[in-house]
Amino acid sequence: MSLAFDLSGCLSARLGDGALEESQVLVKAQSLRPALDRLSDLRSAGEGDPEFLLLPDRRADLEPARDLAFALNEACDDVLILGTGGSSLGGQTLYALADAPLGPAHPRLHFLDNVDPFGFERLLDRLDLEHTGVVAVSKSGGTAETLCQFAVIVEAMIEALDESRLASRVAVITEPKDSPLAALAERWRLPRLDHDLGVGGRFSVLSVVGLLPALLAGLDAAAFREGAAAVLDRALGPEGCELASPAAGAALAVLAAERGYSQSVLMPYVDRLADFGLWYRQLWAESLGKHGKGTTPIRALGPVDQHSQLQLYLQGPADKLFTLIRLETEGEGPRVAPQIVDDPRLEYLAGRRMGDLLDAMARATAETLIRNGKPTRTLVLERLDEEVLGGLFMHFMLETILAAELLGVDAYDQPAVEEGKVLARDYLAVMQRD
Amino acid sequence: MSLAFDLSGCLSARLGDGALEESQVLVKAQSLRPALDRLSDLRSAGEGDPEFLLLPDRRADLEPARDLAFALNEACDDVLILGTGGSSLGGQTLYALADAPLGPAHPRLHFLDNVDPFGFERLLDRLDLEHTGVVAVSKSGGTAETLCQFAVIVEAMIEALDESRLASRVAVITEPKDSPLAALAERWRLPRLDHDLGVGGRFSVLSVVGLLPALLAGLDAAAFREGAAAVLDRALGPEGCELASPAAGAALAVLAAERGYSQSVLMPYVDRLADFGLWYRQLWAESLGKHGKGTTPIRALGPVDQHSQLQLYLQGPADKLFTLIRLETEGEGPRVAPQIVDDPRLEYLAGRRMGDLLDAMARATAETLIRNGKPTRTLVLERLDEEVLGGLFMHFMLETILAAELLGVDAYDQPAVEEGKVLARDYLAVMQRD
Repeated sequence: MSLAFDLSGCLSARLGDGALEESQVLVKAQSLRPALDRLSDLRSAGEGDPEFLLLPDRRADLEPARDLAFALNEACDDVLILGTGGSSLGGQTLYALADAPLGPAHPRLHFLDNVDPFGFERLLDRLDLEHTGVVAVSKSGGTAETLCQFAVIVEAMIEALDESRLASRVAVITEPKDSPLAALAERWRLPRLDHDLGVGGRFSVLSVVGLLPALLAGLDAAAFREGAAAVLDRALGPEGCELASPAAGAALAVLAAERGYSQSVLMPYVDRLADFGLWYRQLWAESLGKHGKGTTPIRALGPVDQHSQLQLYLQGPADKLFTLIRLETEGEGPRVAPQIVDDPRLEYLAGRRMGDLLDAMARATAETLIRNGKPTRTLVLERLDEEVLGGLFMHFMLETILAAELLGVDAYDQPAVEEGKVLARDYLAVMQRD
Repeated sequence: MSLAFDLSGCLSARLGDGALEESQVLVKAQSLRPALDRLSDLRSAGEGDPEFLLLPDRRADLEPARDLAFALNEACDDVLILGTGGSSLGGQTLYALADAPLGPAHPRLHFLDNVDPFGFERLLDRLDLEHTGVVAVSKSGGTAETLCQFAVIVEAMIEALDESRLASRVAVITEPKDSPLAALAERWRLPRLDHDLGVGGRFSVLSVVGLLPALLAGLDAAAFREGAAAVLDRALGPEGCELASPAAGAALAVLAAERGYSQSVLMPYVDRLADFGLWYRQLWAESLGKHGKGTTPIRALGPVDQHSQLQLYLQGPADKLFTLIRLETEGEGPRVAPQIVDDPRLEYLAGRRMGDLLDAMARATAETLIRNGKPTRTLVLERLDEEVLGGLFMHFMLETILAAELLGVDAYDQPAVEEGKVLARDYLAVMQRD
């Protein structure tokens, strides 16, 4: 499995003062060779940072995750996944791949990543708590939103089920160290999976954080890792600086940013990758947005955003780099019956399949962007399954950390968000309690 | 009903070379007075362009929409709303306000705004077509995606129901003129509501395009218009150039853009306004993104995006203008029981309500952005209902057309998207038909 990113639509485009030359991208990508070698050594050693690179080759942690998924599947019609940001977006993306609505063998998953009381209460009202499971995910074990959700739901479940049965319905994923969530898990002897200490939330999709939801949905967790491993092999190997590589993607983004291209649009023509766009948006923004650097990740979706954003993309400011992902869907999906559309103006649709239209629109938009001089990278997928999605995750994680290398920023921290958390507690402290 | 936008967090911020002065915003806003007077005359005359300004005062078109909603509600458990872009996003936003899951009196709405065959077939498979309604929305009557969806579903319904009963389940909203969709409606004598000729898709939310879905969901359509009318009264009146006005919002956006602030982030702390962000994103992008002008609308959602985008917002490039919307939720929602969180590290949560946490986070983020010199406009809502949402729609539509006035672009056209449509048909033409 390999992902054939095509950069030719960027190399023909004028960016700022002149065309971006293939040689510039390749030279910049080759400057990453020492970094790639470092990552390759890390992987061979099987330990060290960034630990997310070791996940594709790991299998031992899947067994306890499978056991937990099996137990929750047996007991539950619905499972709530509590968690926010990196504790949720990877799982959501994987779940989108599942063939929902799932058969009776698999529970419905609900990703609760926000704390709006309106929706929360409505959901709680309609759940049958006797057949509801809960998985609380927090790396630090102290995320305010997740702990708030957890406390409210646990209280409701104690009332509905009795405290002694809590451990049959509620589990946590958190780091193996003392924390508020770990203490609560201890108190009720809840099943617990370890959040890897060396894997940050936005790099955790291939850990049990992403894979437990995938297992709950009946997906093949090992296949995600196999796809990621295949991309990793190639990215760190002799082809690691070629044009389709993550290194070249990072080089392209940084060269474009230097020329004023401050936004990076990821536009899949695949509904199942809509959440992938949200996952990518966190990854890119939080890893690179520091010291005044980074570019803004934009999540788009085709064809629907042709009716919303394409006008701006084509005729607005020249500040966006595009990545379009197309899945081969020609000949797939329901067919437009000629007897329904027997109008000359609809002749172009007669006998076509919905996948033909989707495919044609994806091709046409890529070509239109390129014709209009917009730097556009394209990726064509022959299929979309666990292996391919695992590969996509790995490609974009590598691209992001390599872009951080080129920008000279630390891809793994997020120093700015602490101030707001402290302030929020200050505001809470002055509110009335009931 | 009035919306109290607070611009003080922008006026203290350094934008580019120096602070943005209140006087600069006011002078720019006052330059819009002739435009406001023109709009006011239009409204008094009760005819002319842009026609969307006349919708808040209109009532006669609601009666046929109510009749259609009543008939579909009687017959259907599910209603599919076919349409894309402006034919869908307004309705989706209104529907988010409904108290879903709705009681048995109201059908579930499904907004099909994309043509991915995978999800489409799965939805079709699980619908009971005997109790499913369809509303196809296309201003031109020729939108390829909508016609493709329509043809597939109509064929399935003819098979399930018999052709003679189609008119009891399927309706269209399109312009009162000849078009492929109009011809199909004619062929089966389908109920039909007129899409106003002078109202573009992205300005159509207060027309039957947005209000039919609202009526299907049991919402008060007239109240949306009343809220919009109240905002319009104020925006075109003597207070029309004050700091809280749409004119001042437009002036702020344009002044910020001149200083390199190329992105406009709309970040409500209200899940029910998540779709509002998508609606706004089309409105702003498609109306302003032309001749190299416009800024990029960014849809964010609090608090969840604090765990995704806030790092970039605070420490990335200084290129974003922020609008935060907070709903007063202190004291609302489920309460965190002190006996559950009897850990000193969670003392800050004990006895708090979820709405307290949401409120504290919204306040803290606004303050953190402002302290860090990020230009941040805030809006506090005391409640969220039809009237307030109608007002929000009107505020942002006015702000957009007034920004277009300042930028010297036509807010109502989208000339760039035609090229891709033609190309897509070319691609279709060379594909095999079955």
